[in-house]
Amino acid sequence: MTTPALPVVTTVIDLRETVGAWKKQGLTVGFVPTMGALHEGHLTLVREAGQQADRVVASVFVNPTQFAAHEDLGTYPRQEVLDAELLASAGCHLMFAPTTDEMYPEGFSTGVSVGGPSEGLETDFRPHFFSGVAVVVAKLLNQVQADVAVFGEKDYQQLMVVRRMTLDLDIPTRIVGAPTQRDGHGLALSSRNAYLSEDEIAVARRLNGVLAQAGANAAAGGSVAEIEAQAARSLLEAGFAMVDYVAIRQAGSLAVFEGDQVDTPGRILAAAWLGKTRLIDNMAVAAVG
Amino acid sequence: MTTPALPVVTTVIDLRETVGAWKKQGLTVGFVPTMGALHEGHLTLVREAGQQADRVVASVFVNPTQFAAHEDLGTYPRQEVLDAELLASAGCHLMFAPTTDEMYPEGFSTGVSVGGPSEGLETDFRPHFFSGVAVVVAKLLNQVQADVAVFGEKDYQQLMVVRRMTLDLDIPTRIVGAPTQRDGHGLALSSRNAYLSEDEIAVARRLNGVLAQAGANAAAGGSVAEIEAQAARSLLEAGFAMVDYVAIRQAGSLAVFEGDQVDTPGRILAAAWLGKTRLIDNMAVAAVG
Repeated sequence: MTTPALPVVTTVIDLRETVGAWKKQGLTVGFVPTMGALHEGHLTLVREAGQQADRVVASVFVNPTQFAAHEDLGTYPRQEVLDAELLASAGCHLMFAPTTDEMYPEGFSTGVSVGGPSEGLETDFRPHFFSGVAVVVAKLLNQVQADVAVFGEKDYQQLMVVRRMTLDLDIPTRIVGAPTQRDGHGLALSSRNAYLSEDEIAVARRLNGVLAQAGANAAAGGSVAEIEAQAARSLLEAGFAMVDYVAIRQAGSLAVFEGDQVDTPGRILAAAWLGKTRLIDNMAVAAVG
Repeated sequence: MTTPALPVVTTVIDLRETVGAWKKQGLTVGFVPTMGALHEGHLTLVREAGQQADRVVASVFVNPTQFAAHEDLGTYPRQEVLDAELLASAGCHLMFAPTTDEMYPEGFSTGVSVGGPSEGLETDFRPHFFSGVAVVVAKLLNQVQADVAVFGEKDYQQLMVVRRMTLDLDIPTRIVGAPTQRDGHGLALSSRNAYLSEDEIAVARRLNGVLAQAGANAAAGGSVAEIEAQAARSLLEAGFAMVDYVAIRQAGSLAVFEGDQVDTPGRILAAAWLGKTRLIDNMAVAAVG
C-alpha cells in the first residue's frame, strides 16, 4: 500500500493559510508537536489527534533552545522524508517543518518561564530545558491555532509544564495527554532508544518494572522516601550506569508529598543513564486506599 | 445625549462567547487594553480600533504584576461605571473587566520576559514593569483573539516591547501604535495627571517643549549625549523635581546610537518627577539629513 504524499509547509504564513482554510470550512484542527525521528509513540499521538479533530497538523522541529551546549542537538536523529511518510500513514494532513531562522529570526528576544510543575526533576539536571520547551510550545500553539494539541505522557513533566503554561497564558488550545507507548517488554518508545546497544536495551527494559514495583509499594502505604531510594538502588543493580532521579510526586502539580505517603493520586518519574544515553519513564501511582 | 449601556463581561468564557459569535458572523475584532481611569487618550485608541475593525473590545484591568510594592497600585484611580460610559461613547462594543482572580488564579506560575527593547529606560527605574506588562498583554491578547490591538505611543517603550513579544510568540494579533493625545499646551494626556496640582500642571506642560527642542537639535546633527544632558538640565530648571532619564534611541529597537549621532530615525524618551507623580513622554526624532 502506498501512502499519498504529505503536504509540507515550512513557513508560518503557509501554515496559517492551510489551517485558516480548514477553519473556514468549519473543520476542527488537532496538533502534534514533534522533534522528528518519529516512532510508533508519535504516531499514536497523531492518531489520537485524528480522533479528537477533523484535521491533524504535526510539526517537526528540533528546537535548539531546549538543548544545553553539552547535549545531543548535533547528533539528534533526523529523517525528514521518512517522517513525512510515517505521519501520512497515521492520518496526518499537514507537516510543518520550519527552519530555525523561521522560528528564531534575528532580534528574537522573548522568554517564557513556568514555575510550579517545572521545579525539580528534569530541571535539576537540565536547568534550561523547560524554558526552551515553554517558548517553542507557546510559539507553535500560537502558530497553528489548533483546537486541541496532543502530548505524550512519556514526557510527563513536560506535559504538566505545557498544561500550566497554556492555562496561564490563555492559549486557546486544549492540551490532551496520551499514554506512553512501550515495546513488548515495557520499554517506553523513545527516539533516543536508537542510541542503545543490544545489551543496553536489555537493561533499559528493566526500568518500567522497577517503577511499577515501586509504585505498587507506595500505593500499599510505604514511605515515599524509602521507596524512591530503593528504586534507585534497583536501577543501578539492574545495570544502569547512573540514576538522575526516581521520585514520587503529586500527579497534577508534581508537588512533593508532604507526609511521605501517597495520600492523593501520584506519579513516579525517573531518569537514568545507560552509557551516554539518558532514558526517562513514568507511570501513575494510585493513592493509598 | 444618552449612550446605550455598554455590555460588560468579567470572565474569559463570556468574553470568548461574544467574540466567537462576532467571528462566526465574519466580523473583525479590534482590542484596546486599558487600566481604566479613561481619558481622551484612551478614547482615541478605541476610535482607532473602530477604524481598523468591525467590533471593538476594551479591557479595564489594573494589573498588579506591573506595579512594584512602593508604587501606586492601591491609589491608582478607579472609575468603572464612568469608564463604561466613556467607552460606549467612543464606539466600543464590549468591556472586559476581569477580577484579579480571573487573571491570576491560584497556582498561576508563568512568566514572560522580553529582552531587546525592554532594556534600559523604564527598566532602569521599574525593573519588574515590563515582565508584568508582557505577561498580562500576552494573556489579554490570547483571551480576546482580536485581529488588531491598539496601543498608545505615549507608552512608547511598552509599545515596542509588546510588538517584540507578539512577534516572538507568534500571537496572531496585529499591533498598531496610535499617536499620543495632548492638551492644548502639549501635555501628554495621562491618568496620572489627575495627581497634579495647578502649579505642577504648569511645569508638566514644559516637558513636551523641552523634548521637541532636544529632538530638533539632535536632528540638526548635535551630539546625542550632550543633548540628553542639556535636556535633563532644562527639565530641572523648568521645575521638575527629578529626572529619571532623557534618552535618544533608535526608533524601532530602542538600541543606543553607537556613533552619538541620530543616523537613523530616532525617538526621544523621558521620565521625570513632579512631587510624587512620575510623568513620561516621547516623540519622534528625524535622522540627520
